[in-house]
Amino acid sequence: MSTFGTLFRVTTYGESHCASVGAIIDGCPPGLPLEPQDVQTQLSRRRPGQSNLTTPRDEKDLVHLQSGIEHGITLGTPIGLLVRNEDQRPRDYSETDLYPRPSHADWTYLEKYGVKASSGGGRSSARETIGRVAAGAIAEKYLKAVYGIEIVAFVSSVGKIHLPTSVCPPLLAPAEDNDDVEDALSPEFVKLLKTITREEVDKNIIRCPHPETAERMTQRILRAKDALDSIGGTVTCVIRGVPSGLGEPVFDKLEAKLAHAMLSIPATKGFEVGSGFRGTEVPGSKHNDSFIRKADGSMGTKTNWSGGIQGGISNGEDIYFRIGFKSPATISQAQDTAQYDGTAGTLAARGRHDPCVVPRAVPIVEAMASLVIMDQVLIQNARKSSAALLPAITTLPPTMVKPTAN
Amino acid sequence: MSTFGTLFRVTTYGESHCASVGAIIDGCPPGLPLEPQDVQTQLSRRRPGQSNLTTPRDEKDLVHLQSGIEHGITLGTPIGLLVRNEDQRPRDYSETDLYPRPSHADWTYLEKYGVKASSGGGRSSARETIGRVAAGAIAEKYLKAVYGIEIVAFVSSVGKIHLPTSVCPPLLAPAEDNDDVEDALSPEFVKLLKTITREEVDKNIIRCPHPETAERMTQRILRAKDALDSIGGTVTCVIRGVPSGLGEPVFDKLEAKLAHAMLSIPATKGFEVGSGFRGTEVPGSKHNDSFIRKADGSMGTKTNWSGGIQGGISNGEDIYFRIGFKSPATISQAQDTAQYDGTAGTLAARGRHDPCVVPRAVPIVEAMASLVIMDQVLIQNARKSSAALLPAITTLPPTMVKPTAN
Amino acid sequence: MSTFGTLFRVTTYGESHCASVGAIIDGCPPGLPLEPQDVQTQLSRRRPGQSNLTTPRDEKDLVHLQSGIEHGITLGTPIGLLVRNEDQRPRDYSETDLYPRPSHADWTYLEKYGVKASSGGGRSSARETIGRVAAGAIAEKYLKAVYGIEIVAFVSSVGKIHLPTSVCPPLLAPAEDNDDVEDALSPEFVKLLKTITREEVDKNIIRCPHPETAERMTQRILRAKDALDSIGGTVTCVIRGVPSGLGEPVFDKLEAKLAHAMLSIPATKGFEVGSGFRGTEVPGSKHNDSFIRKADGSMGTKTNWSGGIQGGISNGEDIYFRIGFKSPATISQAQDTAQYDGTAGTLAARGRHDPCVVPRAVPIVEAMASLVIMDQVLIQNARKSSAALLPAITTLPPTMVKPTAN
Amino acid sequence: MSTFGTLFRVTTYGESHCASVGAIIDGCPPGLPLEPQDVQTQLSRRRPGQSNLTTPRDEKDLVHLQSGIEHGITLGTPIGLLVRNEDQRPRDYSETDLYPRPSHADWTYLEKYGVKASSGGGRSSARETIGRVAAGAIAEKYLKAVYGIEIVAFVSSVGKIHLPTSVCPPLLAPAEDNDDVEDALSPEFVKLLKTITREEVDKNIIRCPHPETAERMTQRILRAKDALDSIGGTVTCVIRGVPSGLGEPVFDKLEAKLAHAMLSIPATKGFEVGSGFRGTEVPGSKHNDSFIRKADGSMGTKTNWSGGIQGGISNGEDIYFRIGFKSPATISQAQDTAQYDGTAGTLAARGRHDPCVVPRAVPIVEAMASLVIMDQVLIQNARKSSAALLPAITTLPPTMVKPTAN
Repeated sequence: MSTFGTLFRVTTYGESHCASVGAIIDGCPPGLPLEPQDVQTQLSRRRPGQSNLTTPRDEKDLVHLQSGIEHGITLGTPIGLLVRNEDQRPRDYSETDLYPRPSHADWTYLEKYGVKASSGGGRSSARETIGRVAAGAIAEKYLKAVYGIEIVAFVSSVGKIHLPTSVCPPLLAPAEDNDDVEDALSPEFVKLLKTITREEVDKNIIRCPHPETAERMTQRILRAKDALDSIGGTVTCVIRGVPSGLGEPVFDKLEAKLAHAMLSIPATKGFEVGSGFRGTEVPGSKHNDSFIRKADGSMGTKTNWSGGIQGGISNGEDIYFRIGFKSPATISQAQDTAQYDGTAGTLAARGRHDPCVVPRAVPIVEAMASLVIMDQVLIQNARKSSAALLPAITTLPPTMVKPTAN
Repeated sequence: MSTFGTLFRVTTYGESHCASVGAIIDGCPPGLPLEPQDVQTQLSRRRPGQSNLTTPRDEKDLVHLQSGIEHGITLGTPIGLLVRNEDQRPRDYSETDLYPRPSHADWTYLEKYGVKASSGGGRSSARETIGRVAAGAIAEKYLKAVYGIEIVAFVSSVGKIHLPTSVCPPLLAPAEDNDDVEDALSPEFVKLLKTITREEVDKNIIRCPHPETAERMTQRILRAKDALDSIGGTVTCVIRGVPSGLGEPVFDKLEAKLAHAMLSIPATKGFEVGSGFRGTEVPGSKHNDSFIRKADGSMGTKTNWSGGIQGGISNGEDIYFRIGFKSPATISQAQDTAQYDGTAGTLAARGRHDPCVVPRAVPIVEAMASLVIMDQVLIQNARKSSAALLPAITTLPPTMVKPTAN
Repeated sequence: MSTFGTLFRVTTYGESHCASVGAIIDGCPPGLPLEPQDVQTQLSRRRPGQSNLTTPRDEKDLVHLQSGIEHGITLGTPIGLLVRNEDQRPRDYSETDLYPRPSHADWTYLEKYGVKASSGGGRSSARETIGRVAAGAIAEKYLKAVYGIEIVAFVSSVGKIHLPTSVCPPLLAPAEDNDDVEDALSPEFVKLLKTITREEVDKNIIRCPHPETAERMTQRILRAKDALDSIGGTVTCVIRGVPSGLGEPVFDKLEAKLAHAMLSIPATKGFEVGSGFRGTEVPGSKHNDSFIRKADGSMGTKTNWSGGIQGGISNGEDIYFRIGFKSPATISQAQDTAQYDGTAGTLAARGRHDPCVVPRAVPIVEAMASLVIMDQVLIQNARKSSAALLPAITTLPPTMVKPTAN
Repeated sequence: MSTFGTLFRVTTYGESHCASVGAIIDGCPPGLPLEPQDVQTQLSRRRPGQSNLTTPRDEKDLVHLQSGIEHGITLGTPIGLLVRNEDQRPRDYSETDLYPRPSHADWTYLEKYGVKASSGGGRSSARETIGRVAAGAIAEKYLKAVYGIEIVAFVSSVGKIHLPTSVCPPLLAPAEDNDDVEDALSPEFVKLLKTITREEVDKNIIRCPHPETAERMTQRILRAKDALDSIGGTVTCVIRGVPSGLGEPVFDKLEAKLAHAMLSIPATKGFEVGSGFRGTEVPGSKHNDSFIRKADGSMGTKTNWSGGIQGGISNGEDIYFRIGFKSPATISQAQDTAQYDGTAGTLAARGRHDPCVVPRAVPIVEAMASLVIMDQVLIQNARKSSAALLPAITTLPPTMVKPTAN
């Protein structure tokens, strides 16, 4: 339904052309400094009209915080917030009324609910993500303040234009590669994971941290736009600084929650974590991340094929994953399709459409990642703090108990 | 945690070497004919020792139904079930006690809980999946009886050995392909989705529906086994006959629930639905699934890049998706790694290990798919049956209301 | 937390003096006619300032529906709504800042959150109930339209002024009564349950359906008001027309959900259903509700000590229950108490206070009852409609199967 | 459904005459010492056949722990447990097959599920409570070890035989009392709450801590037994040592969760907390619990009408509440009623029946109380430990922030 999370919980409402979209964020720890600007920054990165590559709807997307905060400090009570729908132009869609848009949600919403919003599959609109982005910004304010967690997403491909494999591993190694060949994560990628920042990502409108590739991606999107067509892409995200121990066996493994969160974003088609699909081709002897004592005395792994998660639980290494976004379904060129009643015909959508959603998807991915990590932090803190109140375990073999020195 | 689902809900318990593993299945519709054999069949497909490719532990895995059924009919009350752990040999693992196994869950379980089972990351064991497979078998009994839904998974790759691209699409089209080229789903793959059965899948021990490829996969696994190594692979799954309207916007989109379910299976690294990652490279004009009136008068789509889900809601077409499983972490060859206290050393695991999990993962994938669909069926039936009791809508424009004839 | 319900789910936000209070209602069946007035009517019955017996804060409490509805028809998507806090006068409370108000939530909120709203235990404010009342009004619109369900609450006592025992049974029979004496529900009470309407309840400001008693209650409240004191009371509620089969064994029995809902209303101290505490004194032979075939051929019970619920499941008879509300904690007379730091002193609250909350509690009780019934209707409809799709049961003894004729 | 709790979660299965009844307890903190005897003690207090006042079914009710524990220490993973149904005599009930037992769950189960167990409303059986009692025993092991929390329930009335009002307050003060009269909690009751132990409670088979009253209660039950009749009663429970801050505004107030838990126990009809219904008659000026600095420097309240909960949150004082249990529906005397098909007739139940359930209800009440407190402890520990990691609040007025010294 429209609620996500167990202890840190966001519930959203709103479709494209109603009075407002908004959210209630419940379970935010009390005592967190929070200003509207903390939320607005990510909302502005999400909003359309940032460039000529995205939809020209000029929505200000100003957030109005309603509750749960006084004098800039969270009270621990629910934070209500809303963003008004300033640009309500439902008539733009009137020509399409007889046709369910191919690969859009018009038809399935009608199948599901028996009735649909005049704007089509209203809640499937990208506009619904405003509530998520706002909630995610609140979560990450906490995660940054307490754990120094940093969440940075970037565009790793647009259509067939991918980041160089040295910068970001491919989905699969080239077919001709032999799995007996040493096949490590590239040093550039490891460095990228460690250092990439939002500032760097935002240096170009594509949000791709490799200027040359970004320029090629721009051209690819403009080509789609000129052709009244659209194109997909992938977003890669890294979460740095996550404490070990997050993720709830067995059904709520950390990667399962991340996959759930990411596949709940409109237009997503795939998710992979760590070595992902490519990792299916690498023998265990190479794929295993051996343990080492790190310089600061803590335990870590030499490599990070696991993507920071083992057995569904974070291990303290960087968490990274990739999400695939399909080419937007709404295009302006004519499509041969059928009306709701089955009559064959041609649909030419009007209105304002994104030829490619991945640049704007970046803050949405970051938000969903924040929501997952935040919820898991609270759940694990419940366990950890409650277990810590018990007497020390003295009756178990030492290999069954966490060394206190660790 | 250890519960999955909202209205059809499974809760599991048990680790590798405790008294039993089991589950409670709550919310099963009353009046469903159910015999132990309905559950046993899938458990037996999951159990180890089926061939020399999998772990030789000969566990009978006989299910004992405890409650919720009388005279072979479900009562609607919770179904308790358990499978005894007959082969309890914890000592096999004793050498490893000083070492967290690389890429296994030993270390993260200790980080999370501060204490761990003597068998290591106990709940991360494949043995935990018994409860899921049993629950899934019950769900699919219902889905088959009422909707004729068929769920069939099969192995689509082992290491670099993939099904031919004509039979099953690759994760990405070859790099040299141009996205202006017509790039349809192959007729063989479309046919495979429509016709593949479990009987056919089980014709070889790999569970790959292409004998020649299966043979190559077998050789690949034996090579890993001989090398005291392991290898990963992918499983593809199709769900046929799903009614339209399943999936709960916005956070519980059908693909999000499937992704959650699949990534909760041990050793999974990736998930993609429909066109998946490859679909990110295909322009919208080609990727869109145009609507058609089908021979029986119902609405359908010409193509099925969407994988049967649009806007997070099933559209009645075949749902298909692929899951990536990493190479098993437990291997018998020596690994340079560190002990829990950080001391560098060499670990050589003993015991019985699967060199490749994908053949046994097939019924687990089917089970998780069943659980997701079953839960969504109940939730949508709640809405649909409740909405059907309201008076017909007469005040809305006809394009906003589902035609009754549809 | 701030969410109630499984399939019909309300989430609320807001405290006394923030920008607004509001709610998101998720899971409302699509196709329900819904106008703002449907919500406003109950909000206006709840709002303060209706008489000189309640707090004189003149809040208009106008509801603003934000989403989920078009052309007066629900879309099945979340309904966002809010009511602005027009009368924000936090300074009224400034004198009390050093003192936690006795039996109020100031101190416990500070213990729980470590920080509190300037208005004190903000979410414990009666103002928070606005979201519930709005959500309940939507639920009952559905329940009335589909099942003809009627929910009517009324004031059954104020302080020691109770409805005559012939009209409404006492909590306990007089001590001198012998349990061998025939002790039936009075015909007047049975008739009251069958016929009472909100219109009749609203004929006096007390919302007590017995004019003479209402007058005595009024005098009692005025006496409390004059004494700068407060007084409690009870509200009795009947739900007519509930279909049989609602309530989820075992933890979500219908009475358990009702008790949960009612005790979540501020200032409540007790709940009893059907014969309640008095029923603990009546022997089983008198207390049992024998079955009869009713005039229309359906099954019913001769008496209704059970209050319409047996084994946690509705049986189709009237559901009735009573809720106790304590005397409001905020009073204007001086109280000897201690400051937050433990310093003894005297607190004399200023501001506007209700001397008695029960008249205004009536619509809140109705709302919470609606939310419980609505959620259970959806859950049971999921089961019932899903089970109905299975083949008829032919292999069970007839006494184990519901007769189809029933 | 059959799951209770959010972070500490119990799921139960089983009806009267199936293979076993059992439970899965998920979320137990790791590192808790736990032996079967910890669970068995309460199960044995619950089991039938303890005296000639309760049903003579001699079920051993031996618990079998399946998982989640090694070497007597909890692992943090789910604890599976079961108790075999040794005394399976479904034929005892065969005569009743044509009749739904009045005020029992036979009819409503059939209405709800369309099919029912041969034993009648199987899950409404008292036998289902075994899983709860086991889970509660685990919870209270933790609560005792960490917080020194003590939970003691006792029988406060059987039929019209009540504890003396000096020992335990009546549900309502005598009608002739004037609310202007000083009306404090009696010192005996305050002392009882502070000192009562299970050992003392178990000194008589009634579990009533007042020998003379216990004797009268015994006679009352024997009178019911001789008359082939049954009688109800009340159980009062105190929870000592609960830390302040438990309970989740707004829908999961601590009293709301307790009410939910208690009304989910079979045969319950009412719940009141603290002053309860009697408190509705006491003016606020007398009913308010003024704050004092206690001898140890901490804050407390002079009186405890609130029952240890204010604004839905525990305040550190003793929590106490009363639950009403109806007279058991199953009686051996002939009852005029109707068969399932509506045919009027006479039902004389055979088999073994409890003439009064309250003595055996005592450990069930304690168990449900444990489950509620445990779950709330974990949820509050999540918040508290997470908030404690934030920097100290320096920008708020001191009256809005909890003094660190407190």
